[in-house]
Amino acid sequence: MQQRCMNLEKLFNPKSIAIVGASEEDGKVGNVITKNLLNLGYAGEVFLVNPKREEILGEKCYKSIVEIEKDVDLAIVAIPAKLVNGVVLESAQKVKNFVIISAGFAETSEEGKKREEELARIAKENDLNILGPNCLGFIIPKLKLNASFASGMPEAGKISFVSQSGALAVAFMDKAAKEGMKFSNLVSVGNKMRIAEAEVLKYLEKDPDTRIIGMYLEGIKSGSNFLETASRVAREKPIIVLKAGKTEKAQKAISSHTGALAGSDEIISAVLEKAGVLRAENLEDFFNMLNLADNLREMTGENVAVVTNAGGPGVLTTDAFFEKEIKLAELGRETKRKLEEFLPEESSLENPVDMLGDAREDRYEKTLEIIGEDENIHSIICVLTPQDQTPVDKIAEKIIEFSAKGGSACGGKNKTAKNVMTVFIGGQRVEEAVKKMRASGIYNFSYPEQAVRTLDNLYRWEMFKKRKDKIGENLVNPKRKEKAEKIINTAKAEGRTALYFSESRDLVEMYGINAAEFVEIFSEARENPRAKLLENSKSLALGFPAVLKVDSDRVLHKTDKKGIVLNIKSKKDLEKAVAEMRLGFPGSRLVVQPMAEIQTELILGVKNDPMFGSILVYGLGGIYTEVFKMVEFLVPPVSLAQAEESLLKGKLKFLFRETRGQKAYNLEEIAKILVALGFLAGENPQIREFDINPLLVYNNGKPVVAVDVKVLI
Amino acid sequence: MQQRCMNLEKLFNPKSIAIVGASEEDGKVGNVITKNLLNLGYAGEVFLVNPKREEILGEKCYKSIVEIEKDVDLAIVAIPAKLVNGVVLESAQKVKNFVIISAGFAETSEEGKKREEELARIAKENDLNILGPNCLGFIIPKLKLNASFASGMPEAGKISFVSQSGALAVAFMDKAAKEGMKFSNLVSVGNKMRIAEAEVLKYLEKDPDTRIIGMYLEGIKSGSNFLETASRVAREKPIIVLKAGKTEKAQKAISSHTGALAGSDEIISAVLEKAGVLRAENLEDFFNMLNLADNLREMTGENVAVVTNAGGPGVLTTDAFFEKEIKLAELGRETKRKLEEFLPEESSLENPVDMLGDAREDRYEKTLEIIGEDENIHSIICVLTPQDQTPVDKIAEKIIEFSAKGGSACGGKNKTAKNVMTVFIGGQRVEEAVKKMRASGIYNFSYPEQAVRTLDNLYRWEMFKKRKDKIGENLVNPKRKEKAEKIINTAKAEGRTALYFSESRDLVEMYGINAAEFVEIFSEARENPRAKLLENSKSLALGFPAVLKVDSDRVLHKTDKKGIVLNIKSKKDLEKAVAEMRLGFPGSRLVVQPMAEIQTELILGVKNDPMFGSILVYGLGGIYTEVFKMVEFLVPPVSLAQAEESLLKGKLKFLFRETRGQKAYNLEEIAKILVALGFLAGENPQIREFDINPLLVYNNGKPVVAVDVKVLI
Repeated sequence: MQQRCMNLEKLFNPKSIAIVGASEEDGKVGNVITKNLLNLGYAGEVFLVNPKREEILGEKCYKSIVEIEKDVDLAIVAIPAKLVNGVVLESAQKVKNFVIISAGFAETSEEGKKREEELARIAKENDLNILGPNCLGFIIPKLKLNASFASGMPEAGKISFVSQSGALAVAFMDKAAKEGMKFSNLVSVGNKMRIAEAEVLKYLEKDPDTRIIGMYLEGIKSGSNFLETASRVAREKPIIVLKAGKTEKAQKAISSHTGALAGSDEIISAVLEKAGVLRAENLEDFFNMLNLADNLREMTGENVAVVTNAGGPGVLTTDAFFEKEIKLAELGRETKRKLEEFLPEESSLENPVDMLGDAREDRYEKTLEIIGEDENIHSIICVLTPQDQTPVDKIAEKIIEFSAKGGSACGGKNKTAKNVMTVFIGGQRVEEAVKKMRASGIYNFSYPEQAVRTLDNLYRWEMFKKRKDKIGENLVNPKRKEKAEKIINTAKAEGRTALYFSESRDLVEMYGINAAEFVEIFSEARENPRAKLLENSKSLALGFPAVLKVDSDRVLHKTDKKGIVLNIKSKKDLEKAVAEMRLGFPGSRLVVQPMAEIQTELILGVKNDPMFGSILVYGLGGIYTEVFKMVEFLVPPVSLAQAEESLLKGKLKFLFRETRGQKAYNLEEIAKILVALGFLAGENPQIREFDINPLLVYNNGKPVVAVDVKVLI
Repeated sequence: MQQRCMNLEKLFNPKSIAIVGASEEDGKVGNVITKNLLNLGYAGEVFLVNPKREEILGEKCYKSIVEIEKDVDLAIVAIPAKLVNGVVLESAQKVKNFVIISAGFAETSEEGKKREEELARIAKENDLNILGPNCLGFIIPKLKLNASFASGMPEAGKISFVSQSGALAVAFMDKAAKEGMKFSNLVSVGNKMRIAEAEVLKYLEKDPDTRIIGMYLEGIKSGSNFLETASRVAREKPIIVLKAGKTEKAQKAISSHTGALAGSDEIISAVLEKAGVLRAENLEDFFNMLNLADNLREMTGENVAVVTNAGGPGVLTTDAFFEKEIKLAELGRETKRKLEEFLPEESSLENPVDMLGDAREDRYEKTLEIIGEDENIHSIICVLTPQDQTPVDKIAEKIIEFSAKGGSACGGKNKTAKNVMTVFIGGQRVEEAVKKMRASGIYNFSYPEQAVRTLDNLYRWEMFKKRKDKIGENLVNPKRKEKAEKIINTAKAEGRTALYFSESRDLVEMYGINAAEFVEIFSEARENPRAKLLENSKSLALGFPAVLKVDSDRVLHKTDKKGIVLNIKSKKDLEKAVAEMRLGFPGSRLVVQPMAEIQTELILGVKNDPMFGSILVYGLGGIYTEVFKMVEFLVPPVSLAQAEESLLKGKLKFLFRETRGQKAYNLEEIAKILVALGFLAGENPQIREFDINPLLVYNNGKPVVAVDVKVLI
């Protein structure tokens, strides 16, 4: 876990820049960068470096960086890959911040990989900040600083866009220019050798000009570092991530343990959620979320009112609320009364408020003002279709005025300040109005569904902020940890890769998880030559029907390998089953358990993710576990409140609802097990994989019981 | 089922039009219509009617329609609602086609409802075609005929748009004008009094200018008529429906029978699918589907190739293929070899083909040509980000040329003609290219996911056309029908609203469905005073454990009402259970069944939908039926091929796959039951509701058995 605190202040705010590889040749990367830095208004000093030239574009040219007499805060390197390391090493005493544009590093060949390793070594030894290699560079519109080979200068604003794809950043800039999106920083991270998403996040956290952070990621470099940083930053600034590469990862073989239930992509979703990072489903959502976030006040609640001059689009907007967190709220009685007073008779006073096709600016204005006074409403979506009699621009002006007043009649100071957004559906007739509104901080969506979806996506951030007190703390109980280690170390010392059931049971019971009763039948040969089944009266005391299982780290899928016999009804049958199993698994320990009554089976586990460490997985068990995929993920530590929320909002929520002929299950009892698993994961990093399958739960007061516990070490 | 065959030829292709309510007053509906008909190029004759004026806009004005000496093919009526019926009645001998623009009919008050009923009567008695009332009118761009109060004239093309919302049609026209969408007809159906979606469909079926039909619907007027017409039309022309009003209908109380599993909206989806109609998820999809359909050749297969000049958007495109019918196909070896020959070393030769950021028009051209020759590829998506060195317009030209050649190097005549679409991501830099491509029949999407999603949506139509032979036929077996009627009539004669289990069993066994063995225990008092349990030796022959159930039309939810006792282990217990149940349900018939082994439970039923008639519902049964909602719908008649397809592609497909420790279930056996239910539904329209719950199915060779069958009559 690299926790070096980089200071990227000079990298992203340099007073002087050297361009190594400056060029006069049109279309060359070094030429574009040179022009970008010379011509777009950057106020700092720019030094051109090119050993082959005296002068470029009328500016003096240096042979090398070391030749420059003045301080150089930042060097942008755009030369063939094989020359890069030499230049960096040579300048390492003079310059501490680099942007390496050049490709030809780890992204290409073995040779490139070695080159990057060497560059990393140089960077480390000389304490250099390096963005890239293989990146587009970065752009800070406020400083008119375009340190990239994409031409142009976006408008200065509050959105920072961090992209693992330079091309996407370019496309975004072009789209942004047309649609009025404004940036504080655009950063292309390239190969993320030294500066990955976490390092940029730490910089953006303190950047006063950044209010919203958008990231396009294909991978995440240091999972735990990212998680820790993002969790902190996301409390202050919304982070919206578009994570590509879902599909490949989704193709995983199916097997029966919880590990296989966790596609990497689902784990990334769980991690992002834990951190309070908003994940965009696709590029369109990403774009919309960044733009709406830029125009959003704090959302004080989930209730939305929709006003429209057309019934059809009103119904479509209503449809879009299906299964969303935000709600198409009931309007207050007073609100309805006031609306009724002035709206035409055929208007709908329900939400959506249909003001009819002949609604002009006055009707929009008055309706908005009335809803503005309704304290129960938190956001307003204004829908408009440009009919012949619709004064689109005038209506837009009224909406702008209304929003400027805080989305309420009494001004922005009162508590009911509302977010206002629009869905003007059309082409040329709405174009001007949309632009004007955008310039005034009101974002327009082309379609109703986008508006509802995007607002809902952003509302998740408000929920996260409210939830922050619910995050569990990573408290370690040293005594328990020591005892657990002892159990695990004993097994390791015996050369085993899994715990015996008796050990697993001791382990989980230390964490307060009730495991099934059992009797061990030792391997006669190896462990306890005198142990005979009949002498072991305890096994009979458990009663019948009983279950016989093999208990060995070599048999992990008992059903497949015939390592389990169910429903044994008598002493005689048990003896027979034991004899047979001794043949199948000579030398293995066996376990007898009473056959438990099955009502609902859960499956729980801890997966050790290579990127993010321990991840809790839990879901519905039974024969169709993988069919239904009723699975949820949690990133430990897990607080009780968080566990309860996961259970109540997740796929298993049906268990905790009373339905026809079906009592609710005990929420707290199951939540506590999740909390316990969080502690277990935190205190025992040496566990490779942990599974309870099944955990039997009951809604009749019977206590939860872990029937089988598998601990791989 | 109204099967009157309307001739709408004169309505939509009139040689002469009278405008009743023509007006000179700016902004008035009658004024807009008048200007639309006089000024936009309509070649037919136009007569203005307004009793208060001599002249309007320099044209002669008639007092009434009857005053007009010449023939009038169509009258457009835009006068206050209360005057409409009088005008129509008065002109009914002279004019047979009307567009009633006026609002104030069934959509408003009781009075309006009566007015509409009267209008319908007048129309019927005089055999009039009436579009509306309460509609926007219609527009036929080819004829420069704008018979609506929306101003403007869209470009003439091949898309017909039928809208239940006039405002949406207006918004669409505006959007269309900006984005180059072209129409053959725009029809606002308003209250759909005489001309609903089915009637318009019948007209569009024969309209040679219509190649694609888009419909915005809030309701469907005559379900069976629509279903029949749409099924026929959809074989020739794609019908794309945006059906609003999902949400309201989705809020239904939960109960345990199959009826409650069918939200109306899901039934509409099933009906549309049966008819081969494509349902758009939302307005954005609707717009994209219509536009892409307009530019699409027949899709000969599911395989798609993606070419891109940027890796990131390539990955995002790949993600979009997740769980789609269309596939990101493997490129042929020969294709890869040829690509390798000329593409730079760092390019990706896999699909998506990444031609790198410096790709110019030659690289796009050559790559497209090579893929064009790959017979395994059916569609190509060209992704582009406008980097500084990207000649966007030139690349667009190459794509246009390539598509014009049939999307293949050897011209459109060969079998591998491909569909080509683009995703140029950006703003101003791509604007011109997008317009140019659009004019040449290549549709551009702003985001990769939209392209993949829309192509996939349209591919469903190709699958439907291939499937047409699989549709079941509505064959009635008269003998069986008669026998079934007899059973039902007997029960009805006894005043019952449900069949006894013995009757239900007889009924389903006539259709080849195996039902569980049983013994009836008659009500001693009413039916068979001498019948005693112990005398009925058959009940013991069934063996133990057994189940005792009450068999009465007054107890439909047996579990709730304690009308069922499970797991009865002995004769003595049975006697006790019978005695208790007799107390709980005095006078009711009881049924004893052997306790069946449960492996997997299905639930099947026939729901009688008020709009579409019989709908088959089937899904996974058991305690969590409503939680998992593993439910599918089928519209009878159902062929075996169709039933198998539904089972294999639907939510229960996991049953027919061999998985770890899990044999596959018998597909044909279960499919045959669905076919049988289709016949049962078709032959017994007097059944109100039909349920088999549970149907026990096995993967070990044991035959399927219907344990409980509920038939409400």
